[in-house]
Amino acid sequence: MKSPSAILLISCPDRRGIVAAVTKFILDHDGNIIDLEQYVDSAANAFFMRLEWSLDGFRVPREKIAEAFAPTGREFDMTSALFFSDVRSRMAVFVTRESHCLFDILGRVESREWDVEIPLIISNREDLRPAAERFGIPFHVFPKTAENKARQEKCEIELLAKHRVDLVVLARYMQIVGGDLVAQYLNRIINIHHSFLPAFAGAKPYHAAYERGVKIIGATSHYVTEDLDEGPIIEQDIVRVSHRESVEELIRRGKDVEKIVLARAVAAHIEHRVLAYRNRTVVFA
Amino acid sequence: MKSPSAILLISCPDRRGIVAAVTKFILDHDGNIIDLEQYVDSAANAFFMRLEWSLDGFRVPREKIAEAFAPTGREFDMTSALFFSDVRSRMAVFVTRESHCLFDILGRVESREWDVEIPLIISNREDLRPAAERFGIPFHVFPKTAENKARQEKCEIELLAKHRVDLVVLARYMQIVGGDLVAQYLNRIINIHHSFLPAFAGAKPYHAAYERGVKIIGATSHYVTEDLDEGPIIEQDIVRVSHRESVEELIRRGKDVEKIVLARAVAAHIEHRVLAYRNRTVVFA
Amino acid sequence: MKSPSAILLISCPDRRGIVAAVTKFILDHDGNIIDLEQYVDSAANAFFMRLEWSLDGFRVPREKIAEAFAPTGREFDMTSALFFSDVRSRMAVFVTRESHCLFDILGRVESREWDVEIPLIISNREDLRPAAERFGIPFHVFPKTAENKARQEKCEIELLAKHRVDLVVLARYMQIVGGDLVAQYLNRIINIHHSFLPAFAGAKPYHAAYERGVKIIGATSHYVTEDLDEGPIIEQDIVRVSHRESVEELIRRGKDVEKIVLARAVAAHIEHRVLAYRNRTVVFA
Amino acid sequence: MKSPSAILLISCPDRRGIVAAVTKFILDHDGNIIDLEQYVDSAANAFFMRLEWSLDGFRVPREKIAEAFAPTGREFDMTSALFFSDVRSRMAVFVTRESHCLFDILGRVESREWDVEIPLIISNREDLRPAAERFGIPFHVFPKTAENKARQEKCEIELLAKHRVDLVVLARYMQIVGGDLVAQYLNRIINIHHSFLPAFAGAKPYHAAYERGVKIIGATSHYVTEDLDEGPIIEQDIVRVSHRESVEELIRRGKDVEKIVLARAVAAHIEHRVLAYRNRTVVFA
Repeated sequence: MKSPSAILLISCPDRRGIVAAVTKFILDHDGNIIDLEQYVDSAANAFFMRLEWSLDGFRVPREKIAEAFAPTGREFDMTSALFFSDVRSRMAVFVTRESHCLFDILGRVESREWDVEIPLIISNREDLRPAAERFGIPFHVFPKTAENKARQEKCEIELLAKHRVDLVVLARYMQIVGGDLVAQYLNRIINIHHSFLPAFAGAKPYHAAYERGVKIIGATSHYVTEDLDEGPIIEQDIVRVSHRESVEELIRRGKDVEKIVLARAVAAHIEHRVLAYRNRTVVFA
Repeated sequence: MKSPSAILLISCPDRRGIVAAVTKFILDHDGNIIDLEQYVDSAANAFFMRLEWSLDGFRVPREKIAEAFAPTGREFDMTSALFFSDVRSRMAVFVTRESHCLFDILGRVESREWDVEIPLIISNREDLRPAAERFGIPFHVFPKTAENKARQEKCEIELLAKHRVDLVVLARYMQIVGGDLVAQYLNRIINIHHSFLPAFAGAKPYHAAYERGVKIIGATSHYVTEDLDEGPIIEQDIVRVSHRESVEELIRRGKDVEKIVLARAVAAHIEHRVLAYRNRTVVFA
Repeated sequence: MKSPSAILLISCPDRRGIVAAVTKFILDHDGNIIDLEQYVDSAANAFFMRLEWSLDGFRVPREKIAEAFAPTGREFDMTSALFFSDVRSRMAVFVTRESHCLFDILGRVESREWDVEIPLIISNREDLRPAAERFGIPFHVFPKTAENKARQEKCEIELLAKHRVDLVVLARYMQIVGGDLVAQYLNRIINIHHSFLPAFAGAKPYHAAYERGVKIIGATSHYVTEDLDEGPIIEQDIVRVSHRESVEELIRRGKDVEKIVLARAVAAHIEHRVLAYRNRTVVFA
Repeated sequence: MKSPSAILLISCPDRRGIVAAVTKFILDHDGNIIDLEQYVDSAANAFFMRLEWSLDGFRVPREKIAEAFAPTGREFDMTSALFFSDVRSRMAVFVTRESHCLFDILGRVESREWDVEIPLIISNREDLRPAAERFGIPFHVFPKTAENKARQEKCEIELLAKHRVDLVVLARYMQIVGGDLVAQYLNRIINIHHSFLPAFAGAKPYHAAYERGVKIIGATSHYVTEDLDEGPIIEQDIVRVSHRESVEELIRRGKDVEKIVLARAVAAHIEHRVLAYRNRTVVFA
């Protein structure tokens, strides 16, 4: 058993002495650094850091760490977030009809590859209820029309709050997410788009890819913002195709890329390796 | 030494009996098929074929093959092109400032990886004259302004004709090619665009890719049409990047993809493995 | 709904006239070729072909096709196999402890990406019974010792026969398969090995990969022969790693490659696109 | 123009306070950190770090930095190496017959993608003299026999010393490098092996890959040790192949991977991003 660790994600204006100050803070309380990654965006004069240290022997109890670090944070004008490796993410999955991303996620949770909880699955349709039931996860359906959309989304937000969800994964959820949900879960809603963005944004990307005669198709996982398909990209990958593949075959091949790309993005997020800024992401290794 | 072979590229409306008729033609004249690839685009009801057979023992002399095949071609309303493996392509390379694609091409020719002739290199600038001279290839400069562009391009076309050029390779040639040149060399001008088209068409694709925060960059080789960056794609490839890469680093990494993608497209063309139709390509293996 | 098609896989010594004869057979009976791929291994003087044609309008009833084709087959000394697109494969899955490949397969079947039946799952351990039960598939356990191995395998073979299984997929089955089973299912047992063969054959490939300090790990799907890890390779793929990945992280990353590589190999097999010869495979596109 | 920077590569036993101490050293002398990467191999209890900081404003003159840092280095029992971004590497290239890697290297130097000097090219044969001459680089031939090998290698070592060479690149040099040269240039000789090591070590890897029927071929760049093909791997990459490729075609496709993989390894080395230990490498991004 690994002993639990603390993870600090920091962003701040770049200036001298940040790493020295942060590492001194850990050292002064007898902390043992497990991992440290930093990145400076010189053009933006922005500093980013991920620091992970063992709680074993660290002289500040976990509930006092934020307070103890506060003076350092203030000195450098930091935005920071603190996580603990033994606190499991609570993830809601939104789906519509396609099951490949959902099954992929459920398999990872069931096999404990991911140490997360999925208290509920939400859909606008009934189609995937059997899949959810196979894994014993509550399945909530909120059918949407132009009229009831706002009201239904309010219900969804309440349900997420009730289940203390801290991450929403859109696993081929073919609906536009409303502004309130986006605002409440800023940089905590991950979508998979079935193209290599920014190519083929919008609906029917495989049809568009076929029409253009591309030799490679891809998938893009990103945080959801109000602008559809425009949020900060977390992960992308591709697969080669040829003239031989019909649209149907592109769709079939694309599914494998979609589920793997989405899984990598979710893994990076739940391991607290992602920082979003200026519609970009820093994804530490 | 391999004995020479004939290569027939065929496209026609799809109907029954095409393969049977074409292979019977070869068999009836004691030909030995080396390679046969065919593809049917059902949606477009279009048939494509590449047939290669040994001239050794074939009972029709090479200068009579087209004539002998004509009845079969007419029966199926074929468009066809006939090539011989021992006839070398004559390739003109157009460049501007960047040398990586040019050096890559020259290295392949010098080492006889490609059995082609490069009678001339054309540029709108002097920058790469030393590179051309290192390999002893005549270097012609046609500086262009809005005023002299049409006249200069006419000179270029004459020069290409004089040197019996049958393939033009734009090796990071940062100029728009005029309609006359495109028309005369339809599906015989290959360009390398430094992005994964259709993403980031136009100028400065690496800057745009950086701004969008993509996790993968790419390059696209395509036949040149009048619509910039819109021609039929022959080959694409990508390389992974991360938040760490600056625009300069994207440019540097992109160069390796560009030169390899361009080289693969040129290789496919000079081996007569590419058929273009409806702004798409069939690239046989 | 696509109308059903027939698929003929042919191998024979290479000589003139094979394609002409086969396509004439189809034409003479009013068949409409959907796909034709052929490959000649000149070094081995061997010819391979996959021919798919629509049964719609074909003047030979499906149960008489083999007989009607026999004279052509004899003329060219062909080995051939005939399949029909509307006959579903019956697949048995063998597992041990790891669930990622099993879940991946079950998800593909459940979503009808693959049109196959899985009448049973076999294991040497109880671990994955819950996974099988989630999908309602009978789960049979045959624990093995040095003593009972032969007897247990006999039972397995009987069970496979009883369920008319025509494909066995070893989805991270960590047992050596006995000679009788291999013999009865020659080129019909597909294994996934968790390395880029021939590198790191045998047990603990990720540990070995870590020790060697490789920058890429991979997975290999192959038909099972009596020589462990030595059978004909159907598909391989890789993922980049760095010095940062521990053995555990290599194992985790490897799982994604394993399941995708296995799925591609199985898809190629059930679509009748694979021909094995001389410990190699021809995998048509 | 970027102002020059200092780069410090550190390895030492892992313990608390290393990062704090090193960053304090920089801070205390008014240094501005440009990049900091660290890695801890917990299993080996080993710490690695690459630190780059601007010399602009740093209060220790460059010739005194090593001395000023020495106490910190001693405290943590560090092995360290100091480099300056404005000091160009002096690279010798060893070749035999194949020109693709050599041309690739020369193109990168000529275009100033790499800011290195190549004072000489060494070969055991005359074949590539014209290539060297095209780029105006002295070409030295040391033909080798079992008898003269030791003597010839002594001459080579003297020549390298005379030209103050600090990096030797074996660009498809088909000779075993002697122990004296290896010892003098430990972790400073980079080889490209034309397979995905450890698969297909030794001679004729493409023939072996063909025989085994692999679906992917690769190339491996590594530091040269006395054990052939066994040195620490710096970079690897692959390209997909199919049953269609003959050995000759594998060789041709492999060349593109070889030259790119070698170039990436050389780039990592000359940018001082590689640390070798225990037959592994840490390659910082």
